Amino acid sequence: MRAAVFDSGVGGLTVVKSLIKSSIFSEIIYYGDTARVPYGNKDENTVIRYSLEVLEFFNNFDVDLMIVACNSASAFALEELRRKAKFNVYGVIEPGVLAVENISIDYDENILIIGTNATIKSNLYQEMLKKRGYSNITAIPTPLLVPLVEEGIRDEKILNPVFEHYFKGLPKPKAVIMGCTHFPLLKEELERYFADAILIHSGDAIVEYLKREKVAKNNNKKTELRLFASENVHRLKEVAHNWLST
Amino acid sequence: MRAAVFDSGVGGLTVVKSLIKSSIFSEIIYYGDTARVPYGNKDENTVIRYSLEVLEFFNNFDVDLMIVACNSASAFALEELRRKAKFNVYGVIEPGVLAVENISIDYDENILIIGTNATIKSNLYQEMLKKRGYSNITAIPTPLLVPLVEEGIRDEKILNPVFEHYFKGLPKPKAVIMGCTHFPLLKEELERYFADAILIHSGDAIVEYLKREKVAKNNNKKTELRLFASENVHRLKEVAHNWLST
Repeated sequence: MRAAVFDSGVGGLTVVKSLIKSSIFSEIIYYGDTARVPYGNKDENTVIRYSLEVLEFFNNFDVDLMIVACNSASAFALEELRRKAKFNVYGVIEPGVLAVENISIDYDENILIIGTNATIKSNLYQEMLKKRGYSNITAIPTPLLVPLVEEGIRDEKILNPVFEHYFKGLPKPKAVIMGCTHFPLLKEELERYFADAILIHSGDAIVEYLKREKVAKNNNKKTELRLFASENVHRLKEVAHNWLST
Repeated sequence: MRAAVFDSGVGGLTVVKSLIKSSIFSEIIYYGDTARVPYGNKDENTVIRYSLEVLEFFNNFDVDLMIVACNSASAFALEELRRKAKFNVYGVIEPGVLAVENISIDYDENILIIGTNATIKSNLYQEMLKKRGYSNITAIPTPLLVPLVEEGIRDEKILNPVFEHYFKGLPKPKAVIMGCTHFPLLKEELERYFADAILIHSGDAIVEYLKREKVAKNNNKKTELRLFASENVHRLKEVAHNWLST
């Protein structure tokens, strides 16, 4: 089974990591829109326009399905992509919500959603969680975490004041949805900060979702990965080499 | 005299502020490429391609000259823009270098250049300063300062660890070139951090340059400002309202 994975840049490789680990695809064709990254501060119409252009790229390949790794594109462009695509298109937001159900927390426990401005503004995570009965939901845009990850910064002297800036005074969450592909790279630091909280990872969530929906199953074969980018594919390959090897 | 001002986003408004204050133009037509911001992490070819597209936009107007407010575009695309434009095109890098001469510091005093990855990688500031005889030049890409400004963060609990991350252990500079349109919004904080250093501002530098080259002179008239953007011109106008009124 051949999957297209679409992301605004290199961040979606955290989703690729989960997909490769799960061995559900024989091949992944990844496209990062590195020439126009980030999507997370952009308008809905712009994100839709860019996403549809990326869909055109995947029409060059015989793919079985498409995964939108980018939360911002999942939030804004999924419907439009589904309307136009010749294959099934899966976002990461509904899988993230179902992953919360999977950890079986109480309906009144605190859930924190962090993401880009676009993802939080779309209100999708919030609405889906409310529909499922969760009542204590806080959603915070944390756009600074993206460049911090891009810069490779793990220093708590920098990260902790930023965490404090965003999270100080919030109710202690039981679950934290990492609603941006970059954030799993700060998983350890976020876990330390939100001691005892369960962190939801878009990559693991989409794997669970595809298995549960019987779209794909573990075939125990190695996944071939092909990487494409709208600029600087060399850097994408370098980042893939670093992130996917550990 | 009607000037086109081109920037990758809203940051170029700091340059507009200097231009308006100087009263050298009767009209400024500003274009911010907000749908593709930032340029500072992008490839040279991408920045050139985007800049030439913006040039096409200005062909809709009868402008007398064009100012590239964005340091990254000035660094990568100036030559190509000059080749294609029907009017004179001015970048901010040469003016910044001449501004250093203007403050008459000794040739062996420490000069620090801060900017995006693109601007620092282009090596232009460094080479021009060396050609003029300055010998102690340090150039540091400080990409995190851009989103910090975009997020409106002025809290020193966040800024100081970031400054320390970039500047700790550097020789104390006598002059600091703020090689990105965003940085003047952190001028006070940078001045406090680099006590006694003289900060070079792209906007003031280009005004000085245009006057010295007799391209424009103070006409004591109010400058009319027209704002355009590749997305969300509403936000651009809001930021202009806030930044230009103080």
